[in-house]
Amino acid sequence: MSEPILPIRRVGIDTWRENVVFLHRDCPVVRAAGFQALAKVRVQANGKTLIGVLNVVDDDAICPPCELGLSEEAFRRLGAEPGRPARIEQAEPPPSIAALHRKIAGDRLEEHDLHAIVQDIAAARYSKIELAAFVVATNQFELDRDEVLHLTEAMIATGQRIDWQREIGAGPIVDKHCIGGIPGNRTSMLVVPIVAAHGMLCPKTSSRAITSPAGTADTMEVLAEVELPLDRMKDIARATHGCLAWGGTADLSPADDILISVERPLGIDSPGQMVASILSKKIAAGVTHLVLDLPVGPTAKVRSMSAAQRLKRLFEYVAARLRLELDAVITDGRQPIGRGIGPVLEARDVMQVLANDPQAPQDLRQKALRLAGRVIEFDPDVRGGDGYRIARDILDSGRALAKMNAIIDAQGRRAEPQQPGAIGFEVTAPADGTVIGVDNLRLARIARTSGAPQVRGAGVDLFVKLGETVRAGQPLYRVHAQFDADLEFARQLVGRGNGFTLGAPEQVPREFASAPGDVR
Amino acid sequence: MSEPILPIRRVGIDTWRENVVFLHRDCPVVRAAGFQALAKVRVQANGKTLIGVLNVVDDDAICPPCELGLSEEAFRRLGAEPGRPARIEQAEPPPSIAALHRKIAGDRLEEHDLHAIVQDIAAARYSKIELAAFVVATNQFELDRDEVLHLTEAMIATGQRIDWQREIGAGPIVDKHCIGGIPGNRTSMLVVPIVAAHGMLCPKTSSRAITSPAGTADTMEVLAEVELPLDRMKDIARATHGCLAWGGTADLSPADDILISVERPLGIDSPGQMVASILSKKIAAGVTHLVLDLPVGPTAKVRSMSAAQRLKRLFEYVAARLRLELDAVITDGRQPIGRGIGPVLEARDVMQVLANDPQAPQDLRQKALRLAGRVIEFDPDVRGGDGYRIARDILDSGRALAKMNAIIDAQGRRAEPQQPGAIGFEVTAPADGTVIGVDNLRLARIARTSGAPQVRGAGVDLFVKLGETVRAGQPLYRVHAQFDADLEFARQLVGRGNGFTLGAPEQVPREFASAPGDVR
Repeated sequence: MSEPILPIRRVGIDTWRENVVFLHRDCPVVRAAGFQALAKVRVQANGKTLIGVLNVVDDDAICPPCELGLSEEAFRRLGAEPGRPARIEQAEPPPSIAALHRKIAGDRLEEHDLHAIVQDIAAARYSKIELAAFVVATNQFELDRDEVLHLTEAMIATGQRIDWQREIGAGPIVDKHCIGGIPGNRTSMLVVPIVAAHGMLCPKTSSRAITSPAGTADTMEVLAEVELPLDRMKDIARATHGCLAWGGTADLSPADDILISVERPLGIDSPGQMVASILSKKIAAGVTHLVLDLPVGPTAKVRSMSAAQRLKRLFEYVAARLRLELDAVITDGRQPIGRGIGPVLEARDVMQVLANDPQAPQDLRQKALRLAGRVIEFDPDVRGGDGYRIARDILDSGRALAKMNAIIDAQGRRAEPQQPGAIGFEVTAPADGTVIGVDNLRLARIARTSGAPQVRGAGVDLFVKLGETVRAGQPLYRVHAQFDADLEFARQLVGRGNGFTLGAPEQVPREFASAPGDVR
Repeated sequence: MSEPILPIRRVGIDTWRENVVFLHRDCPVVRAAGFQALAKVRVQANGKTLIGVLNVVDDDAICPPCELGLSEEAFRRLGAEPGRPARIEQAEPPPSIAALHRKIAGDRLEEHDLHAIVQDIAAARYSKIELAAFVVATNQFELDRDEVLHLTEAMIATGQRIDWQREIGAGPIVDKHCIGGIPGNRTSMLVVPIVAAHGMLCPKTSSRAITSPAGTADTMEVLAEVELPLDRMKDIARATHGCLAWGGTADLSPADDILISVERPLGIDSPGQMVASILSKKIAAGVTHLVLDLPVGPTAKVRSMSAAQRLKRLFEYVAARLRLELDAVITDGRQPIGRGIGPVLEARDVMQVLANDPQAPQDLRQKALRLAGRVIEFDPDVRGGDGYRIARDILDSGRALAKMNAIIDAQGRRAEPQQPGAIGFEVTAPADGTVIGVDNLRLARIARTSGAPQVRGAGVDLFVKLGETVRAGQPLYRVHAQFDADLEFARQLVGRGNGFTLGAPEQVPREFASAPGDVR
């Protein structure tokens, strides 16, 4: 052999955003160049270059000795047809690896270092192992606030950025975002129609669930289409002032998506990474005014008031430098919000609140009004403190429901409403007592195990909340599922802990989130 | 479906010590349980349990929808036949992940934490991403010396341990080890026959090359069999007092091998990890007295005298607690040792030194005598300072060569001697000058690119060393290879930097390693 050129083969393995290159152990290129498993290789074809990680295979059915296999991600990125020739060679490490090593060694990184790292990450030049190294090396107290600022800027700079002012001649673009961790916390689907009905422009892009039982995009999808091209979003925003779309169709902060693919299995979500992730996505989406929901509670992401204040200040520092108007609100994160956990059940809660149904969960209504009020107070014509009342008037008058229906119709209404999963079981109180603990993490896990969010109707429906008194045998919640196996997994999980703690009324944990005098 | 049970399929992908489980995207289990890519799953079959990482595939040729694919590593660990039923379910994170998170957050870990982590690593319960997180979180100054001690103990405890005293009624078991990074530094193959000829027991286990162009096992394999079962090693040690075997057949410190699989692609080799890796392997191999070679130089692993002293103290602290007699020697790491870089070329250098060939590289001879002398001084009957002279007498008298031949015959002599690669090219001096720099990393890379260590005869043969004066056009070294493509890669690499720096005689860097009064 003289040239390391092989025909491309598409290998149908979903490597979750990692470029993997497959070569057979008997491939002359592997033999000759002494390639090792997990080595970095450079593949050139179709005028494009790709850096990937080598996996050595022994099975001709996956990749025969004289072909160059590409994982789905790598195949998509290279954009060359199967059978086309590609050149493969050993790759130098990506240019920013030296900066990564300095961060691992404890150095402070400069603006250009972080830009170089984020560019390499966005171009998929980092392996999973290198991504994990970056996530750990920038974890916790390892990034100072200027490093977080530069990381955020770099993440914005590597992707698309929507300019609503230019696109539709708009004024402020408002949004509301939660840092996550509280099941059932579906306030966006209430805040958007309320503030749009007030006349503010709120074309919201949301994520699908990553580790939670439902994201806003998953829940909205129960009612309407959410995979909307940017042009459709613009038309809808022009017509209704609101939109509740999935953000994945626009290429906003692509490095963030890649970092999340490692943060998620590691269970790491440190303050600096959280701030860079959220603010880069929001600024790239063209948001100019943001209300941020920071829930605090024993099983929330933020577990103490001092940690919440620190996180709030970091968000505020970075937002101010990037000229994003930010109002960060510390909220009650002691338990799930509303009753349903899972897309269909959460959509039901939202529609009950919009319809002013007497059955509607009051905690979800109150929290949505509070956050919508803070968004409305971005309006220079609204006096500080008047937002809550304005939001309540919009909701009570039915204008919020009308606006939501307009948005749903504009996005494309689902033909028939989806129902909660047909099979299930109830979890009952083992004794008389007062509910003194409802574990966010446990209930999210049970809802996910029951099939949410992939199975839209699966999840948990809560019957009682913190501070309520129950009798032995009284149902605490119902688990909904579609498949027997899911239900069996969920039952086993509930058997190891149902997420509820009973005790005496005086043991109910105090809400330490709300500031004195805060309008609720 | 009612039970998540599927027949096993063997998927021929070498995942380099990671258990990967493949399920088709249309598999009812994936659909129902909402498994996500990179989720942790538990597989049970054959009375065994395995934790792996899920890869979702779209290609029936890799894994059809109703089968459970296992990577080579996972298949081997589970030890069940293809077609046998296996149960798959979502896995809890391994128990020690909580301790890993505390380390990431900056906590000091206790003895039991490190034991739990190392046990989970050795049992292959950590994903590549989690291993990378551990390696980074314990990097640099992140481990204090007691954490290094406990990490070392835990790594010893999870594998086999050879007890030579019990096995063959031996006294002290001596060994010599280098921390690596210096090409051609093949002193073990000289130290072992010299100290064995002195009557000391030195049954050495060595590694194959990981990132270098040749390990001791690769080089010894040019002359003799090195893959020896433990019983053979015992017989050989009884008969000859020496042995130069590959350590991979014994299950010594298995967690170390797994950590190396991540440290290598990350290029991380921090002091704590190095100490735990080397000392765990040596103690597990039954070594009681160890001479440690710590080369210092501008392109060595250790680049300053102060860093070398710090590393030496850490080795000494941990060794003392584990009752290993340790003599750590800081040596000259400014350039490669000997002439050859690559298995065949290095074996040639070793045999020339043993044969007292006038062509033998004197630096290799001197360094081996110095280290052998330090080992010999572990003998209570030898006066301090006499070791070097005793070693020299053994070498000069031909007794070291006779011992080496006895060891080679006992292990199984190779039928015909291997030759250096038949094709190659010479690299010449671009101008007149004195050699003031020879880059260890660059020359190792050139030797690897030419095919070493997989291609035994490939590598670099140095003609001049530091401080020598050359004329323009004079050959500096020759690159040997077996395959055209390798040679072409090596030629390109040399074109980007040949590893030699020429200058004026006064620019030759001073050797800062040798202590005053040290016998050489």
